[in-house]
Amino acid sequence: MFMFHPIGYVRSPYSETAQVPRGPGTQHQAEGVLEIAPELEEGLNDIEGFSHLFVIWVFDRSEGYALTGVPPTDDRPHGVFATRSPYRPNPIGLTVVEVLGREGRNVRVRGLDMLNGTPILDIKPYMSAIPAEKLRLGWFAEAEARRAKS
Amino acid sequence: MFMFHPIGYVRSPYSETAQVPRGPGTQHQAEGVLEIAPELEEGLNDIEGFSHLFVIWVFDRSEGYALTGVPPTDDRPHGVFATRSPYRPNPIGLTVVEVLGREGRNVRVRGLDMLNGTPILDIKPYMSAIPAEKLRLGWFAEAEARRAKS
Repeated sequence: MFMFHPIGYVRSPYSETAQVPRGPGTQHQAEGVLEIAPELEEGLNDIEGFSHLFVIWVFDRSEGYALTGVPPTDDRPHGVFATRSPYRPNPIGLTVVEVLGREGRNVRVRGLDMLNGTPILDIKPYMSAIPAEKLRLGWFAEAEARRAKS
Repeated sequence: MFMFHPIGYVRSPYSETAQVPRGPGTQHQAEGVLEIAPELEEGLNDIEGFSHLFVIWVFDRSEGYALTGVPPTDDRPHGVFATRSPYRPNPIGLTVVEVLGREGRNVRVRGLDMLNGTPILDIKPYMSAIPAEKLRLGWFAEAEARRAKS
């Protein structure tokens, strides 16, 4: 068993799950702040040089998990590890955000899909991407193809 | 405080940190297996349709943390959240792997940089990438430019 303390919290415009855009074609453009604990501020040095960051966080308002679920982008069930469902064995979220700027321990970002007050576990620089032409998107691509036909 | 149980373990060719390639130009090509707990196997359904996965894991053999450190790809110090250092306030790792196949609860993958026996916390599908031309890489790009000049 592993225990983690939040390194900070997300300041987001969303106070309830229903406000977070989801489903086909969703683009996350919400802006907000990653507010890091004062004693960890030094750990943010040079972070503003990166255009994008990975934020690892906790679905702290999600309870329990289901090994199979129907995601909002499909009408068929898939295994939880093949989806971004909040109902996971470990309720950990991962979001790529764009860096807008940093003031001390506050990192301003765009692309939030977390609720206000979400605990942050870690932040990492986004250093390389898999080229789009090398990505296979499994059920997600199939669901998009079915939607395009209908 | 948040507590997480491993969902499984990494089977990797690396048994010691010194064996994991690091430093400028490193490409992770190591193959191995994400071995998921039998009771969670159903959660892997349809995962083999994705070409790439995010693996969230624990640096279980790293002790303590430093808010600033010199990464193997540079000769200057940077904040821990702007690096992939194992010495993090929460020792959580994130690796993108390529899916080679799945047999039951074993997902064969390429691109491991974890040690054998590393606890896995979560697996998520890699669904979209930031286009390379939109990425700014801060200290990492500067270190690469200095190396190219020298």
